[in-house]
Amino acid sequence: MKVDLIIAHGYVITMEGKGVGMIADGAVAVRGNTIVAVGRSDEILSNCQADQLINATNKLVMPGLIDAHIHTGISIYRGMAQDMSHWMQKGLWPFKKNSEEDDAAAGSLVNIIEGIKAGTTTFCDYDSSMNRLVQNYSKVGARARVCEMINQLPDDISSIPVGELYPFDPAIGERKLQANIRLIEQWHGKENGRITCLFGPQGPDMLELELLLEVKALAEKYDTLIHMHVAQGDREIAQMEKRYQKRSIPFLDELNYLDRRLMAVHLTEATKTETQLVAMRGASMICCPGSIGIIDGLVPPVLDFIEAGGKAALGSDQAPGNNCNNMFNEMKFAAILNKVKRADPRVFPAWQALRLATIEAAQAIGLDHEIGSFRPGKKADILIINLLEANMTPIITDPIRNLVPNLVYSARGNEVETVLIDGQLIMEERKLLTVDEQLAIKKAQEAANEISRRSKNDIIAAGSDVYHMMEEGYL
Amino acid sequence: MKVDLIIAHGYVITMEGKGVGMIADGAVAVRGNTIVAVGRSDEILSNCQADQLINATNKLVMPGLIDAHIHTGISIYRGMAQDMSHWMQKGLWPFKKNSEEDDAAAGSLVNIIEGIKAGTTTFCDYDSSMNRLVQNYSKVGARARVCEMINQLPDDISSIPVGELYPFDPAIGERKLQANIRLIEQWHGKENGRITCLFGPQGPDMLELELLLEVKALAEKYDTLIHMHVAQGDREIAQMEKRYQKRSIPFLDELNYLDRRLMAVHLTEATKTETQLVAMRGASMICCPGSIGIIDGLVPPVLDFIEAGGKAALGSDQAPGNNCNNMFNEMKFAAILNKVKRADPRVFPAWQALRLATIEAAQAIGLDHEIGSFRPGKKADILIINLLEANMTPIITDPIRNLVPNLVYSARGNEVETVLIDGQLIMEERKLLTVDEQLAIKKAQEAANEISRRSKNDIIAAGSDVYHMMEEGYL
Repeated sequence: MKVDLIIAHGYVITMEGKGVGMIADGAVAVRGNTIVAVGRSDEILSNCQADQLINATNKLVMPGLIDAHIHTGISIYRGMAQDMSHWMQKGLWPFKKNSEEDDAAAGSLVNIIEGIKAGTTTFCDYDSSMNRLVQNYSKVGARARVCEMINQLPDDISSIPVGELYPFDPAIGERKLQANIRLIEQWHGKENGRITCLFGPQGPDMLELELLLEVKALAEKYDTLIHMHVAQGDREIAQMEKRYQKRSIPFLDELNYLDRRLMAVHLTEATKTETQLVAMRGASMICCPGSIGIIDGLVPPVLDFIEAGGKAALGSDQAPGNNCNNMFNEMKFAAILNKVKRADPRVFPAWQALRLATIEAAQAIGLDHEIGSFRPGKKADILIINLLEANMTPIITDPIRNLVPNLVYSARGNEVETVLIDGQLIMEERKLLTVDEQLAIKKAQEAANEISRRSKNDIIAAGSDVYHMMEEGYL
Repeated sequence: MKVDLIIAHGYVITMEGKGVGMIADGAVAVRGNTIVAVGRSDEILSNCQADQLINATNKLVMPGLIDAHIHTGISIYRGMAQDMSHWMQKGLWPFKKNSEEDDAAAGSLVNIIEGIKAGTTTFCDYDSSMNRLVQNYSKVGARARVCEMINQLPDDISSIPVGELYPFDPAIGERKLQANIRLIEQWHGKENGRITCLFGPQGPDMLELELLLEVKALAEKYDTLIHMHVAQGDREIAQMEKRYQKRSIPFLDELNYLDRRLMAVHLTEATKTETQLVAMRGASMICCPGSIGIIDGLVPPVLDFIEAGGKAALGSDQAPGNNCNNMFNEMKFAAILNKVKRADPRVFPAWQALRLATIEAAQAIGLDHEIGSFRPGKKADILIINLLEANMTPIITDPIRNLVPNLVYSARGNEVETVLIDGQLIMEERKLLTVDEQLAIKKAQEAANEISRRSKNDIIAAGSDVYHMMEEGYL
């Protein structure tokens, strides 16, 4: 068989089967944007003739990582909202109300680069201005599953007193819904299928019942999924109880919202029964351990969800309050925070963390027919990871292999040398090939300088815990 | 003033004062192995004439990190002992009983390189064979505070049934004590003062009362500290109660062991009252959040300890069960695990995590007269960290600075470009200058190949949870 590329002699992690599907001296053959063969190096090399051969000796070859929940448009405020209470109102909002679409786009590009350099090949980006941000994915060459965040809230929610019901503005909701529809019409399936689009209601508390139902009907019509925060905080539950006298999950269940079309993000405030209900109804759960740990000091109920039969994925959430978008960080935090939650070192082993960032993530976001494992016919989203680093030494293969534990608990992301997405080489020896990384950083810095100048009075007025740390000389 | 080196125009984190002591356009001047001036760049550049000038624009300049508890001699089993119960007996021991001093030394060298590449300049190494391992610190040029682990246990403790009292062998204890004394006599204050030595009893459960008292008297005689596991697990508490009808901390208090000479490591099983007692008596606490999270699924009581007035430091512990030795990992885990333990995002802010790996760590290990902050007269252990990385973008300085939050929550260690220890350039543009990194990795790999061959039957016989994962095809 004639192919374009063979990557051979690596430790190939296929993510097929129940574990990680390791092939010790393995190879992957690629034609166009597709994986056409996976197996032992001797077999692949004798069955395929390739234009290009990559020798992956002492390297690990695996499917690209999936970040199932990221807000790249707010990464321009990285490091400005953590170690604090009132994260949204006092941390995020003073910046957000002073940001323009251009600023969001400049930050988003750097955020996508950050992800790729840590092995993320698929981004489920959930943000406003997605019609603009999606162009970054087109340019970089990453796989993206995107939506516009839909709510009916005024542009400046900092004026709403804490504890009062959000005022809904149907005109705002309509504008955002139309933007989401426009995104789908213009981008779904574009870039050789790399870009796909979902609907993105921001949470059951942030738009009217009627609009929630309209979004649901549109998701059926366009045959796509709904990406939505669910039970993301006590703030949300309080709004739901005040408005509907119901908690989020029973409310959504009555609307038949908890089906296979729903990617339910966070579930931070879900009770065990509610968590099990979401799993039983067929929705998937997106768990963001680093972000929820920093912002709320909590561990989402992802183990309960999986034990109830649900499919879960990991996400990195936002840079202001995590403060990185690196799936190696999320895998390690998912494992350790759940061990601590259960006070049991055996739960959430490394192989499981890896599945929640690859094959099970692909199932959770509805893309497992295309990505998440190496199988002939799937898309060629491939990482080559260098194992000859001090923190990955030694390699032991018999009678136990230490590769996956080291990948999850010791790798930081910078061991990723080469990234292919959709068969295209996007990063080689840690150099991005499709965009100028330093230029992107420079432009994001310029945007951040302007935002911090414009936001200054609002930041001082908000008086967050972080602002007080600064005033008192701690930062 | 004539100096050897000025590092100027960086964001200088001095770690002086109550927070991080930031100087926005700052400089550090070095003569020999000593910091001679710290301040604003314009001041330093007009007052000092330097042979060498490093321009640190868009870089962060800060004191080297302190790893207050590491076992470099067992890093050769990295990734072989996690996600399991009976970590010591089933995880570590099958390898340890089949390892030679040469293997430990080969792994240790790579482990030290790993630490330096992530900004660790001072290693409190607590291991057997330290008379051999210490040579690695001499060779690499790192600062080390070392001891021999002293116990009275037979070489193969896997033969002792779980739950039974350890049999003590005074001859073994005497041999190990003499090795610790030899280490002190030969190495304390050597290498221009970079190497200092402590005593290292392995835990109150692992040697007789008489030997514990002898160690204490010797620590007084040599005017040095004692580095010891205290209340490190339920296994230890069970041994103490069986042998002495006392828990570890009341037992040690009666021996007057909990004074300023003690570095008490872990305190995992300490009650709140016991934790407060250790702090009040003047001992310091070493907290290893990543390791205890993986091995035990627990969060050590470091916040209770600090609130009781104690001085604490962070440590990375061992590679088999953490599985990395990277103080950026420990800072982030310390912050997030404590937020989760208290269910409060405000506790353990980034600046506090940084202090526990720098100035407060130096206090906890008794080296704050030499390291941990930038002050004229202290040793020149200096990191230069690149901020023009995607995951460190943007830099915001007004009205809040995001540098320290990003350093603690987003940096991975590989942003560290340059490392000076004791005034000597040890790493430049991520290249180690004193040792051949790839050769060290190659030798450690060869040693690991032999260990895994020799240990095979013992690993199979131990039948750990990880071995079963391998058998069942998960790894």
